[in-house]
Amino acid sequence: MSPPGRLNELDATSLARLLQRREISAEQVLRACLDRIEAREPTVQAWTHLAPDLALAQARVLDRGAIRGLLHGLPIGVKDLFDTADMPTGYGSPIYSGHQPMADAAVVARCRAAGAIVLGKTVTTEFATFHPGKTHNPRRAGHTPGGSSSGSAAAVADCMVPLAFGTQTAASVIRPAAFCGVVGFKPSYGSSSRAGVKNLSESLDTIGVFGRSVADAALFAEVVTGDARLSLPDETAASPVLRIGLCRTFEWEYADADSVAALEQGTRRLAGAGVMLADCELPAMLSSALQLQIDIMAFEAAANLAAERLNHPTLLSAALITLFDAGIRISPAQHQANLVAAARARIAIDACFDEHDVLIAPSTIGVAPAGIDRSGDPVFCRMWTLLGLPCVHLPFATGANGLPVGLQVIGRFDRDAALLAAARWMHGQLQSDQKR
Amino acid sequence: MSPPGRLNELDATSLARLLQRREISAEQVLRACLDRIEAREPTVQAWTHLAPDLALAQARVLDRGAIRGLLHGLPIGVKDLFDTADMPTGYGSPIYSGHQPMADAAVVARCRAAGAIVLGKTVTTEFATFHPGKTHNPRRAGHTPGGSSSGSAAAVADCMVPLAFGTQTAASVIRPAAFCGVVGFKPSYGSSSRAGVKNLSESLDTIGVFGRSVADAALFAEVVTGDARLSLPDETAASPVLRIGLCRTFEWEYADADSVAALEQGTRRLAGAGVMLADCELPAMLSSALQLQIDIMAFEAAANLAAERLNHPTLLSAALITLFDAGIRISPAQHQANLVAAARARIAIDACFDEHDVLIAPSTIGVAPAGIDRSGDPVFCRMWTLLGLPCVHLPFATGANGLPVGLQVIGRFDRDAALLAAARWMHGQLQSDQKR
Repeated sequence: MSPPGRLNELDATSLARLLQRREISAEQVLRACLDRIEAREPTVQAWTHLAPDLALAQARVLDRGAIRGLLHGLPIGVKDLFDTADMPTGYGSPIYSGHQPMADAAVVARCRAAGAIVLGKTVTTEFATFHPGKTHNPRRAGHTPGGSSSGSAAAVADCMVPLAFGTQTAASVIRPAAFCGVVGFKPSYGSSSRAGVKNLSESLDTIGVFGRSVADAALFAEVVTGDARLSLPDETAASPVLRIGLCRTFEWEYADADSVAALEQGTRRLAGAGVMLADCELPAMLSSALQLQIDIMAFEAAANLAAERLNHPTLLSAALITLFDAGIRISPAQHQANLVAAARARIAIDACFDEHDVLIAPSTIGVAPAGIDRSGDPVFCRMWTLLGLPCVHLPFATGANGLPVGLQVIGRFDRDAALLAAARWMHGQLQSDQKR
Repeated sequence: MSPPGRLNELDATSLARLLQRREISAEQVLRACLDRIEAREPTVQAWTHLAPDLALAQARVLDRGAIRGLLHGLPIGVKDLFDTADMPTGYGSPIYSGHQPMADAAVVARCRAAGAIVLGKTVTTEFATFHPGKTHNPRRAGHTPGGSSSGSAAAVADCMVPLAFGTQTAASVIRPAAFCGVVGFKPSYGSSSRAGVKNLSESLDTIGVFGRSVADAALFAEVVTGDARLSLPDETAASPVLRIGLCRTFEWEYADADSVAALEQGTRRLAGAGVMLADCELPAMLSSALQLQIDIMAFEAAANLAAERLNHPTLLSAALITLFDAGIRISPAQHQANLVAAARARIAIDACFDEHDVLIAPSTIGVAPAGIDRSGDPVFCRMWTLLGLPCVHLPFATGANGLPVGLQVIGRFDRDAALLAAARWMHGQLQSDQKR
């Protein structure tokens, strides 16, 4: 994203290469990140907990020992929805203030085993729902970073860490990536173990990642999922002409001028780069996908957070109580019918990928709105989450007020590697004549 | 099951009725259970933690206050795989010795809100897999109670509590119910929130219940799932002639003489009671269901227990390491293919229920084997768990050595209420001329 300067500004792929060759040390990388955090955290407020001493001790151990794995020496941010054995985990709720889990979430353990250093916990909205935390958009304080993975997107965007964890149940990876201007990747549903990550909606919850390039997101996701298929081929390898479907979705009317302009600008650049572009008409049955996502999330949130709902009603936000009330109004029989409809929708969308290698669509209705009391509208992500499809946000443009905007690329279910390879190439094209 | 005697021997449905009418007090019920536990726990060893003082205090509060809900004043046992905010939770592993969660599992919170009193935590095998705990079969010490819900099945069978929680990933509700001679009910996959229950295999894990009658299991399950459809109609209501499919399964050769005799005896009695009986031929594709269940469970166990696997390798049993090794050998691509095959299998089985209202099949290969170092063979439950179908174990016979045996009744997906109503009637017929 930026030419080599300070180590904290390098992307994860470059850092990993230098670390594996022992050309830089984990301690050097970490100190650069800590310096950046010291300078910027008072403004950005991306973190709920920082563990600089623990991280430095781990960095020195890594510098002295054998190369552990793909993430050797890379500092990462962990959304405070993921359990960590050595740091408090609050799930964005005062109910869990000071809560210290006994074990790492499974994916955190995987990253540590691959050499990553958990630098701290990043701000999440309340149980990854709507009520926001303290984080500001690092591109412009006073604007939301998006949610629910607010702190992770902000920390990566602000070069505090090269990589950070998110989760998406509605829009919680793609939206904050868009608002903060970084790459966000939500893999196919079911790609990673969610053990030790606070349940919100088990039919939807998906672990995702943030990086400052598609290659970075792929590197991180390969470790998180344990799926070697995500190891991207050399970029110079010749690739066939990409067939891209332009999908305005049923929610197109919500897109504002910035978001429409970004999609048009992106479409023009990709067409100029020689891709095959065609409109993607969604199957009519998917017009109900948005509402299905809303109802499934509400029902499962009320069920999964029953202990909090029943035992700590005074410590819940008004927005969360509204979500629970909506969920409780849905009967188990209706919920089962909704799950069947969701399964049919997943089958229906698959045919679109016979004609298109990937789809492009808006990520958000526009740039990050002013104010940090709301985390933005999830309308352009709900359907894709319901469908379980892998999605990548590509930042490449700016709205009228100078804040970042971009588009999302959507792939076929369980074809995450193909999506990432396409998104990497597309991102290069989209950024190639970018004026800033 | 037995005529009114001590309160701890009454079934949950009768106790609930007496409690709601204030004809008995919660404290009286609890004291009867505690007396039984005091007398028998040294032999049975069903519990990892008992909280008599806490339970008595809660009973007195319930006795003084308004009726809370369907389980008002009923003591329950909670498998030590479920988080409890006021009792340590060890997941059957030395890794979690002394672990105190901050919140109740969602289903535990639901039961407490409905007036249940958690009397303690019951023994589970290690992370609900194979390595057993200390529990003996209450019908004959020195024999296994089955696993993984060992303590819950034993405690209910021994009249220590009327109701207890289990979970089933392979056979962990139906098998211990069979070995201990109680009713076990595994609802349809997805019926209850698993938040706060240690993940083993998210494609399979299902929360189940134990009681000493089908009505008891239904009462408990109605609260656990929050599904009012499970409220059984009056038993005297006329019901149409049941169409029962006799399903020997692809694993029939594993059934021993006791299990074969129980199924034959049950079939004769049901035929004598006027049901329509026919053989159920399983679709040929289901011959791979057993292996699919084994592979999905192994892959997901290795993924979900990554933190324990990577960070505490010396505290794992040999059996668990073997399970992890099997899981790690399965690639993510193969696992996705397995999930697709499982989804197809679920569609294929559904047609069987056009011809049969319910199926009957063996629950186990025979009675509880001698020794408490193994928890028995899960071969007759793996397929039904993979298929996500609701299953009820009905105890009604004894093997050659006098230990209990029975059969399982399997219902259509999400038709749990119809299954429970059929099972209640069938259990009455099966027990009607039982000699003991």
